[in-house]
Amino acid sequence: MKVGFVGLGSMGRGMARNLLRAGHDVTVYNRTRSRAEELAREGAKVAATPAETASGEVVITMLADDHALEDVLLGSGDLLARLRPDQIHVSMSTISVELSRNLVEAHRRHGTGYVSAPVFGRPEAAEAAKLFIVAAGPTALLAKCDPLFSAMGQKTFILGEDPPVANVLKLSGNFLIVATIECLGEAFALVRKYGMDPQQYLEIITSSFFSAPFQKIYGGIIAQQKYEPAGFSLRLGAKDVRLILAAADTANVPMPVASVLHDRFLTGISRGMGEKDWSAIAQLQAESAGLK
Amino acid sequence: MKVGFVGLGSMGRGMARNLLRAGHDVTVYNRTRSRAEELAREGAKVAATPAETASGEVVITMLADDHALEDVLLGSGDLLARLRPDQIHVSMSTISVELSRNLVEAHRRHGTGYVSAPVFGRPEAAEAAKLFIVAAGPTALLAKCDPLFSAMGQKTFILGEDPPVANVLKLSGNFLIVATIECLGEAFALVRKYGMDPQQYLEIITSSFFSAPFQKIYGGIIAQQKYEPAGFSLRLGAKDVRLILAAADTANVPMPVASVLHDRFLTGISRGMGEKDWSAIAQLQAESAGLK
Amino acid sequence: MKVGFVGLGSMGRGMARNLLRAGHDVTVYNRTRSRAEELAREGAKVAATPAETASGEVVITMLADDHALEDVLLGSGDLLARLRPDQIHVSMSTISVELSRNLVEAHRRHGTGYVSAPVFGRPEAAEAAKLFIVAAGPTALLAKCDPLFSAMGQKTFILGEDPPVANVLKLSGNFLIVATIECLGEAFALVRKYGMDPQQYLEIITSSFFSAPFQKIYGGIIAQQKYEPAGFSLRLGAKDVRLILAAADTANVPMPVASVLHDRFLTGISRGMGEKDWSAIAQLQAESAGLK
Amino acid sequence: MKVGFVGLGSMGRGMARNLLRAGHDVTVYNRTRSRAEELAREGAKVAATPAETASGEVVITMLADDHALEDVLLGSGDLLARLRPDQIHVSMSTISVELSRNLVEAHRRHGTGYVSAPVFGRPEAAEAAKLFIVAAGPTALLAKCDPLFSAMGQKTFILGEDPPVANVLKLSGNFLIVATIECLGEAFALVRKYGMDPQQYLEIITSSFFSAPFQKIYGGIIAQQKYEPAGFSLRLGAKDVRLILAAADTANVPMPVASVLHDRFLTGISRGMGEKDWSAIAQLQAESAGLK
Repeated sequence: MKVGFVGLGSMGRGMARNLLRAGHDVTVYNRTRSRAEELAREGAKVAATPAETASGEVVITMLADDHALEDVLLGSGDLLARLRPDQIHVSMSTISVELSRNLVEAHRRHGTGYVSAPVFGRPEAAEAAKLFIVAAGPTALLAKCDPLFSAMGQKTFILGEDPPVANVLKLSGNFLIVATIECLGEAFALVRKYGMDPQQYLEIITSSFFSAPFQKIYGGIIAQQKYEPAGFSLRLGAKDVRLILAAADTANVPMPVASVLHDRFLTGISRGMGEKDWSAIAQLQAESAGLK
Repeated sequence: MKVGFVGLGSMGRGMARNLLRAGHDVTVYNRTRSRAEELAREGAKVAATPAETASGEVVITMLADDHALEDVLLGSGDLLARLRPDQIHVSMSTISVELSRNLVEAHRRHGTGYVSAPVFGRPEAAEAAKLFIVAAGPTALLAKCDPLFSAMGQKTFILGEDPPVANVLKLSGNFLIVATIECLGEAFALVRKYGMDPQQYLEIITSSFFSAPFQKIYGGIIAQQKYEPAGFSLRLGAKDVRLILAAADTANVPMPVASVLHDRFLTGISRGMGEKDWSAIAQLQAESAGLK
Repeated sequence: MKVGFVGLGSMGRGMARNLLRAGHDVTVYNRTRSRAEELAREGAKVAATPAETASGEVVITMLADDHALEDVLLGSGDLLARLRPDQIHVSMSTISVELSRNLVEAHRRHGTGYVSAPVFGRPEAAEAAKLFIVAAGPTALLAKCDPLFSAMGQKTFILGEDPPVANVLKLSGNFLIVATIECLGEAFALVRKYGMDPQQYLEIITSSFFSAPFQKIYGGIIAQQKYEPAGFSLRLGAKDVRLILAAADTANVPMPVASVLHDRFLTGISRGMGEKDWSAIAQLQAESAGLK
Repeated sequence: MKVGFVGLGSMGRGMARNLLRAGHDVTVYNRTRSRAEELAREGAKVAATPAETASGEVVITMLADDHALEDVLLGSGDLLARLRPDQIHVSMSTISVELSRNLVEAHRRHGTGYVSAPVFGRPEAAEAAKLFIVAAGPTALLAKCDPLFSAMGQKTFILGEDPPVANVLKLSGNFLIVATIECLGEAFALVRKYGMDPQQYLEIITSSFFSAPFQKIYGGIIAQQKYEPAGFSLRLGAKDVRLILAAADTANVPMPVASVLHDRFLTGISRGMGEKDWSAIAQLQAESAGLK
């Protein structure tokens, strides 16, 4: 399939590469052009502007935040204006429910297709085509995108026809992950204060009940206090927590643990930890318990 | 081995039965005698008082709370007074770190052995000898108890020589479990408010990243809002949260999520939900979001 | 002085009336025209559109929220476009720090003056010219507005040249007030659970240390559980809490009590209490303690 | 009247002195004897043991915590054993509701009178006989104590016949005070981040709505960041917060702001700030916002 791909960050790169590997005809755009050129060696065409990616059946966006997507689509990138009625925009990055709702309307007015398909997985999973994809949008469009999803992920969940619902699910999932990090931070601080070895603690809980892979990954980072380099930065984590609270606020859902997380991330940023891994909120917890 | 076993509640029953199955000579005591007599049919001897269980090498206690254990051991049960220097008391229920510390001292003065060995697992796991056992105490005593642990659990973790450390680990583990329930409650309330089907939501998160068995179990209860009958009651959950906060308080560890949990459980009890499953804190969350 | 006044809600009415009483020439506009006509009997001129109020030296806005102000000034009300360089816009309602910052820029581009002057006080204080006014903006403009402030308030605090700082102060003040309500709610729930008479409790604390007038007012409402009619609605309170958290978020200031308030107000709205007095968050607290 | 007085700390000293000034015959005891001897110069008799203060009609205790009171009364101090049926014990320090309940029972068994009469006020108020006294106990006993209360305080509130209710009121009052400190800390951090001068901020809020004396006192400490020397130490504040939460826990009252306070105080102690003024929780808040 002829596909445009905008945004070659740590996630986007692996995803675009897997589209190429699956034999798709991919035109890539990235603000820092060198990253696009790396992929050219693997067969990608390089676009000079976001709008130039709009030549195929589908354009995928995988951008850092709402602002970047708005700029590419509606602002200086001018992508939406270039899309034709038979083309589909697939938004795969973590954006606000509100922007996703606005995109439904923008595409409706413009007559183009819109699919929301955020993903779960860290960069390694993106590279290995092991992402979990949560997709929502008109059934016919989802069917058309299916081969692309299969090339990038290990499983696609179809959530229905209303795109923003996929964004709610993605945000709720990120909440469960980052809340788990917070809870691990509290638990580790407690057991360390009682003299337990963090590595042994980690082995016990993850080899018994706390056995999901992401629990082992974050437990490992916290046990070793290895918050750099960041897999996903605290600064971006703060953004996600804001999006979660914004979605909750709109629906009038009090989320006390999300509020705790919000306070943690603001503290982290205020203390200059924005570029550490987002699991460094566990370091804040340790410090508040007088550790290290 | 000749073993005494005090406390045949929903956990203790399965544990004592597995000792019998493994060929041990078990004398059981339970306040409600009929439960002890059930086990007599499977080969157990029935003691009329806690003190009568003290004829073997080891006495295991599996009682509801600090108060029950103190009463059996130091109060009306008079068990400690009956123990001889070569006998070992193995405390396997969830008790406070403070009581465990006091038992170290009490046994030291009395000249008897003390091992702390709390367990992870629900009644089904106790019945199936699939518990995870976290043991701490003098090495020689742990070695002696090993065949008993093997009969009751799928894995024993040795935590060192200081018994209360095992209790800290147990409490921190319960914190991770009940905090996960809280987070699930918040996430489900959010997605339900956006019209998502809870069962579909459960399937997506548990078949992707939220994949640990206990996450599936509690996610399932919350998705179906099936908080009765209780596997573990909210009232007992409140007790555990209190023990967690007490352990944290002693070590001066602020635990904001544990504080959220404390507020939830007090609300649950105030609203007459003490005998529901402890995961009914998710119902409180749903109500606070105006659901149902 | 010749003054325009836009927004004759429960606060604006008293404020405009006091300008008239002080001898100013006031042209008023209100979406619901009947309210403007009431003031006509006291000497006000009635404008048919917001823009028509722009004939004097100063135009004061006292509107419900950011949206209403933006609409009047930049949207359908078209007020900004009608202002001449020598005219001053004085924004006196509670708006976001962000909008206040944007207004600085909008007025700068348009060449008009902008003063931010939010107020403390309930409708009775507005009627009695007993408001506290917190003003920030260019010194010359503040001097010009001074007679107007004197007509409406008992005291004006000058905060410097940067208008948004006055909005931050106003929001922080509202935070202190609503946080006090929350704390009173928690304290009353506690003492009621121990059988104390709420009215006696109120008298003791307010006649000893908790003696500020607003503490007596809100303590009285809570003691009598008289949350209707609303002096200031829970729905509008939720808006203020959002503005507080937004200002805190922008400056990366974690505010745990503000987060507690946010959760409370969302619960209140979800439970259909949006039109009760904002002190009804104390009712939520009482309910969570199983009272009434 | 012939009175015993046990505990001459920063509060007790002024209280005992005011009894002497009012002409009462006062026998004092203090663990550090030199403090008792200071009062001897003003006419007090000095007791060598707590029990020796039991010669008059009333014995007042003003001790640091539950433990100290238990020790004096029931432990090594042996005071209760020395009291005769016509003597009254008046407990005036901040103790737990639970201990107060236990004292009701202990005095009932012993046949002696018990009055609970905690106070509001800082050491300066104790010295100036300006305390607020909250008393509960049998009416006849309260009447007997009235001249003593009049000598020490500016006002006595009678709460009924059940002594522990006075302790609940005292704790709820301390909650309102320390919660106000927390809220001030959050507000100051916010406005400082926006560049406002803390002293100016203090003047504005305290000369308008935030006008109670204790608000000015604590606002002043926070504005100047002058947390040493401590008027009331963070370590003792932590004790009070624990007593509040214990009272709330017993009555199943969730108090989310009290939970925030608990986390703050534990952090303060973990960070070695236990001997600063308890208002230093505002410093923790400032640090979490990256200030200073």
